[in-house]
Amino acid sequence: MRAYDIIKHKRDGKALAPESIRAFLNGYLAGEVPDYQMAALLMAVFFRGLTPDELNAWTDCMLRSGTVLDLSDIPGAKIDKHSTGGVGDKISLPLAALVASCGVKVPMISGRGLGHTGGTLDKLESIPGFETDLSIDRFRKQLADIGVSMIGQTSSLAPLDRRLYALRDVIAAVESLPLIASSIMSKKLAAGIDGLVLDVKVGSGAFMKNVDEARALAETMVAIGARMNKRVVAVLTDMNQPLGRAVGNSLEVEESLAVLNGEGPDDVVELTMVLGAQMLVLGGIAASTAEARPLLREAIERGRACATFETMVLAQGGDPAVVRDPRRLPRAAQRDEITAARAGYLQSIDTEQVGIAAMQLGAGRTRVDSPIDPAVGLTVQARLGEQIEKGQTLVVMHSNPGSNKDKARALLQDAFRVGPEPPPPAPLILEVVAPQGARE
Amino acid sequence: MRAYDIIKHKRDGKALAPESIRAFLNGYLAGEVPDYQMAALLMAVFFRGLTPDELNAWTDCMLRSGTVLDLSDIPGAKIDKHSTGGVGDKISLPLAALVASCGVKVPMISGRGLGHTGGTLDKLESIPGFETDLSIDRFRKQLADIGVSMIGQTSSLAPLDRRLYALRDVIAAVESLPLIASSIMSKKLAAGIDGLVLDVKVGSGAFMKNVDEARALAETMVAIGARMNKRVVAVLTDMNQPLGRAVGNSLEVEESLAVLNGEGPDDVVELTMVLGAQMLVLGGIAASTAEARPLLREAIERGRACATFETMVLAQGGDPAVVRDPRRLPRAAQRDEITAARAGYLQSIDTEQVGIAAMQLGAGRTRVDSPIDPAVGLTVQARLGEQIEKGQTLVVMHSNPGSNKDKARALLQDAFRVGPEPPPPAPLILEVVAPQGARE
Repeated sequence: MRAYDIIKHKRDGKALAPESIRAFLNGYLAGEVPDYQMAALLMAVFFRGLTPDELNAWTDCMLRSGTVLDLSDIPGAKIDKHSTGGVGDKISLPLAALVASCGVKVPMISGRGLGHTGGTLDKLESIPGFETDLSIDRFRKQLADIGVSMIGQTSSLAPLDRRLYALRDVIAAVESLPLIASSIMSKKLAAGIDGLVLDVKVGSGAFMKNVDEARALAETMVAIGARMNKRVVAVLTDMNQPLGRAVGNSLEVEESLAVLNGEGPDDVVELTMVLGAQMLVLGGIAASTAEARPLLREAIERGRACATFETMVLAQGGDPAVVRDPRRLPRAAQRDEITAARAGYLQSIDTEQVGIAAMQLGAGRTRVDSPIDPAVGLTVQARLGEQIEKGQTLVVMHSNPGSNKDKARALLQDAFRVGPEPPPPAPLILEVVAPQGARE
Repeated sequence: MRAYDIIKHKRDGKALAPESIRAFLNGYLAGEVPDYQMAALLMAVFFRGLTPDELNAWTDCMLRSGTVLDLSDIPGAKIDKHSTGGVGDKISLPLAALVASCGVKVPMISGRGLGHTGGTLDKLESIPGFETDLSIDRFRKQLADIGVSMIGQTSSLAPLDRRLYALRDVIAAVESLPLIASSIMSKKLAAGIDGLVLDVKVGSGAFMKNVDEARALAETMVAIGARMNKRVVAVLTDMNQPLGRAVGNSLEVEESLAVLNGEGPDDVVELTMVLGAQMLVLGGIAASTAEARPLLREAIERGRACATFETMVLAQGGDPAVVRDPRRLPRAAQRDEITAARAGYLQSIDTEQVGIAAMQLGAGRTRVDSPIDPAVGLTVQARLGEQIEKGQTLVVMHSNPGSNKDKARALLQDAFRVGPEPPPPAPLILEVVAPQGARE
C-alpha cells in the first residue's frame, strides 16, 4: 500500500495491516513520507481511532525506532512508574527511592513540565548540582549499584515518538487516546523495563477531566503492556485538588523529603504507598499490595528510603546535604497570602488554574524553551471539604522579582470556590486497572 | 486565532469565523502556514464538513487568491458550464458554440482528463493546431468578437485552489463535498462569469455513485452561487453508461461535430439541448427552457452553431477544415471488436472501467504528466437495455502500437454485463437543482 492508500484506508474507517503501519511510520522516520501525509494520517487516527492490533503495531514501531535498552544483565526486576501529569505531583521523587530501597530496580526516565503540569526533572534540578542528563552507561551503572536512577528522555530512545509528538502538537492531534497511549508506552518500553505502574490522573487539574476517558486510556495502556509481555498496572487517582501542599520545584522537593522522613501530607504519603505497593508486587518483592505496604513503611521508618534518595543525589552530582537540611534549597524572596473572601466550605478548586498560577510565578513553562525559577511556587493551605473562615489563608504565593504575581493572584482568587455546602467526599484512589480488565 | 486553534476548533466540530478561515488560507498562500497544518485542517474538514457560512468564506478566499476577471465591459451575459466529469462527456464542445451562436457569451475555462474521465482541453487539442493556452487578453478579445473562447486554467486564476487540490490529492482528502464544491466554484467565479450551469454526473462512471450525494453537491454549489449573486443551476444527469458512442479525443470531436450538424447520438443531442436551454435562460435570451429549445434547434438547423465552432477553431489556431471533414482528425491504426459472450439484455456497464480501458489505450492519463494519443479510444455499440445477440459487437477499440490493448480488452470484457432480464429504464436527466432548492 502506498502512503496515499494507507491514509485513505484509515480515513474510511478500515483497519490497517501491521505491515502498512510499519511502512508508513518507518517511511516517515526515513524522510520518505512527508510531514503533510503524516499530519493527515494522524488526523484520520484522531477521528477513527486504532484497533488493538493497529495500536500494537504502531507502538512497537515507535519503540523500535531507536535504541531499545536491554537491562537484563542487571539483577532484579526493573519497574518504572509514569504519571499522566497533574499539579503538585511530586510522587516520583519519594516513590523511586522508597521502592528501590525495598529491592526493586527503578530505571526512571522522566520529562519536564509544560503548561500547568510540573515535571520530575525540573523538581530534581532544584537540588543544587543535580544532573539529569546522564549517559546511558552511567544510568545503567547507577541502576546496578544503588537501584535507582532518574534521568531525562534521551534522543536515542523512541526518536519517532518525539517527532510524532512535535507534529501532533502543532496540528491539534494531541488529544487522541491511542496516540497518547502509544507515545507513553513506546518511550517506557524502549527503556528496557519489566513492568510499569501508571498513575492516570482524573479531574480539574488533569488532562483527563472524567473517569470514563481516564479508564479507557488506562485499559488501552495496560492492554499494550500485556501484548508485549510486560507487567503493567494502572491506578486512576483524583486530581481535583493539588497533591499535597507544595506546587513548585524546590517546594515539592522539600515535601518529598518530608515523606521519605515519615512525614508529609496524607494524600502524598498515601499515593506514594499505593503506587509503591503496586511496584513491589510487579517487581516480585511482595505477593499482594497488602503484603507490600508494611515493607514500604519499614523502609521509611528505618531510614533506608531516605538514605537511598541521598545516595542517588550524591551519585547524580547533587548536594546531598539538602536531604538532611532542605533549607539549602533555593527559596523565594517574597510570600503573599490569598485569603477567603467569605466563610463556608471549600467546594472546588480549579486545579488547572492553580497550576497555571504557579507557572505565572515562574515555576513552569509556557513554551518548551521558557526558563523556570526553582524557588517560586505555591503552598496550598486548604483541602476540599474543609470548613473555611472568612479571611483564612487559602494559598501562599512564593515569588521572586521576575514573577507575574498579579496574574497568579487573579487566577488563584478565581480558582478556589467557597460555598455554604460541603462537596461530596472524593476518594484519592478511584480504580485500579490490571491486565484482562480485572480491577482491585 | 492561531493556526493550531483553528485546526482544533474545526476538529472539535465548531464553526470557524470567516476571518479565521481567511487568516488560515491566506497564511497558507503566503507560506506562513505550512503544508502539514493545512493537511490537518483539510482532513478535519473532510470529517466535520463546513457550514454554509464557512463554505462561503472558504470559496471567496480561494476565488480572490489570484486575478478575478472582470468581463463586464463585454456586452451580454457571460454564462459557463461545468461537468463533474464522466466517460464520453464531450458536451462542452457542441454546447459552447451552440449557446454562443444564440447570443450568450461563453467564457469557458476547462481542464484536462485524469484517470477514467476525459478533459475538454485534450479533446479540443486533437484538432490539429488548436491552442488552449491563450493569454487573458486574447481570451477576452475572442469572447467579445465571436462570443466563445475555450481555454485551460491559467495560473493567475484561483492559484490557492490549485495548491489545495494538489495537497488534497496526496493526503486522501479529495472526496469531500465542501472541498469539491469550493474548488469548482472558486475557479469558475474567478473567471468573471454571470452564471453557471452545472452538470453533476451520477452513476458507475461518475465520481458520485448515488443521487443523494450528487444532489447534496449540486445544492451546495447552487447555494454558493446564490450567496455570491451569480445565477447557478445544476442538472443531475445519468452516468451509468458512456455518453454517446465515442470515448477518446478525436473520436469525441467527430461526434461533437455531428451534433452541431443536426446528427449525433440521441443522448448527446438531448443533454446538449437541456444544458443549452438552461444557459439561454440564465443568459436572459429565453424566459424558460421550453422557449429556449426551439432557438437552439434553429441555430443548429441554420448552420449558425457549426459556423461559430468553425470560427472559434480558426481563431484558436486550429485547422478549420476539420469541421467540414472530420477525417482530417488523427485516426488510430487498428480496430478490434469486443463481442458479447452470450445473448440477452445489456444490463449494466461499469462505466468507470470503460473509461480506464480508454486510458489504457492512450486516450487518458494515469498521472498528470502522462502523454496522451489523440487518435485512440473506443466506440460503444450497445446501449443499456438493448437486446444483444451472442457474438454481437459491444464496443470497438481504436488503438495504436503504444496502446495497452490486452489490459483494455480485459477491462471491457468485464465491464459489459449481459443477462436474461432488461434493466429498469434509466432517465438521462434526473433532477434540476435551482436556487432556493426549487426543482423543475
